[in-house]
Amino acid sequence: MDIVLAKSAGFCFGVKRATQMAFDASSQHERIHSLGPLIHSPQVVEQLEQQGVRVCKQVAEIPDGAVVVRSHGITADEMQDIDEKQLEVIDATCPFVKKAQEYAEKLSADGYLVVLVGEADHPEVQGIFSYAKGEAVVVTSAEEVESLPSNRKIGIVAQTTQPFENLQEIVDACLVKAKELRVYNTICDATTLRQREARQIAAEVDLMLVIGGFNSANTSRLARLCKEQQPETYHIETANQLQDAWFESKGRVGITAGASTPAWIIDEVLQRLNKISG
Amino acid sequence: MDIVLAKSAGFCFGVKRATQMAFDASSQHERIHSLGPLIHSPQVVEQLEQQGVRVCKQVAEIPDGAVVVRSHGITADEMQDIDEKQLEVIDATCPFVKKAQEYAEKLSADGYLVVLVGEADHPEVQGIFSYAKGEAVVVTSAEEVESLPSNRKIGIVAQTTQPFENLQEIVDACLVKAKELRVYNTICDATTLRQREARQIAAEVDLMLVIGGFNSANTSRLARLCKEQQPETYHIETANQLQDAWFESKGRVGITAGASTPAWIIDEVLQRLNKISG
Repeated sequence: MDIVLAKSAGFCFGVKRATQMAFDASSQHERIHSLGPLIHSPQVVEQLEQQGVRVCKQVAEIPDGAVVVRSHGITADEMQDIDEKQLEVIDATCPFVKKAQEYAEKLSADGYLVVLVGEADHPEVQGIFSYAKGEAVVVTSAEEVESLPSNRKIGIVAQTTQPFENLQEIVDACLVKAKELRVYNTICDATTLRQREARQIAAEVDLMLVIGGFNSANTSRLARLCKEQQPETYHIETANQLQDAWFESKGRVGITAGASTPAWIIDEVLQRLNKISG
Repeated sequence: MDIVLAKSAGFCFGVKRATQMAFDASSQHERIHSLGPLIHSPQVVEQLEQQGVRVCKQVAEIPDGAVVVRSHGITADEMQDIDEKQLEVIDATCPFVKKAQEYAEKLSADGYLVVLVGEADHPEVQGIFSYAKGEAVVVTSAEEVESLPSNRKIGIVAQTTQPFENLQEIVDACLVKAKELRVYNTICDATTLRQREARQIAAEVDLMLVIGGFNSANTSRLARLCKEQQPETYHIETANQLQDAWFESKGRVGITAGASTPAWIIDEVLQRLNKISG
């Protein structure tokens, strides 16, 4: 059985940085909190918990000490609450997400109707959205643009892990509506490359594995994209979920992993496949 | 023979305004010049000449007196030459073209690479282009975008008579290139409506007539769009060019006219068709 591992599989720059910052901080502080899970990998979050990083849902739950802001960022209100409580902040917001927050704030201040391309319930999107102080809307697909008002200045930013084609379709639809359009393409190149490579590999193999948290939007999207190319695509979180029967009479198996999937989980999957193949 | 005349046929707001301004000025001045033909209708330009409005190619040809700036606008340099010569200016630049000139200037001042969607040799485009003082390029189709540099701030404006779909395709192509994109949709609604109505009528008739100057870009484009729907489309300038043979066994004839075609030329065509229809 041949295994094709995507070069772009696993931790992106922002996730690597956030994880490093959290582990470093945990060794320097006695008590440390993370507002929401640091990254969308239950396994990494569990490791961090063992190092004393406690996940909280709200600022109100944090009595004192240090707080790590996760890679997806938090809302402007949450940041203000942290400031008011004078907690020590370790800001691990991905610098690309930070940029998207700044653009949303700027577009809003300049009088644009802010259109944020992304999933409304994703923490990154909620964070970016909170920086648009004026009129703003989260849009998932081009169809949703139809209900927007006409003849407005429209400013567009995107969740960093959105597929480029979706942004393009939404820009097209907004152009029909707006007299002036301003677009900040805040999609991270790493995401685009990862999606492109995953699609290519999925089209050339007999079975595709996508590794990453079931709560990770970018991993789920990766699995959907692969399924379009190769119906036999499995989204797994850990090596334990692999089933021997999947691999019967399969010549080539492709593997990719989401941005929040650590290298050691990918390694475990590879080891397990070698055994099955063996 | 049924005749379907497009509601949007003929003079647009800007052309009507410019023609009115030129005729008014000619009655108040002894000597008056127009820099380039006032509008792209040889017949209207001839009428104006009879009223004493002389067409000049360059500012240098104008010794003194008043100058009418045509609806398409002129270049920033030409405007400066006029100022320096202290000629009296009757500025009949279409207000929508003026806006496009202002946007090109502003985008340029704000550090954008200015992409002007239009025909490079059209006087309106040359005028708008001249206001972009920094890096700027005229682009006719999406393919031409490929040679532009990547990772720049790109600012887009359009010739007011461009088809919306062309702007949309060029915006799409620029989005691939740029990290930030700013689009001023300077296409005039009248043009879009005229094109849409012309297409609809052309699809429903047995023969389509498009009336307007052979030197009028918007009329020529209108004729091309109609030909896609109805191969039997004729672009004519005056009623004299109609040929009886075209109309043999034709049940429905559609008519539209470019933005610079005066009502009296359309009327002459209608009268002639009534005779043929007999």
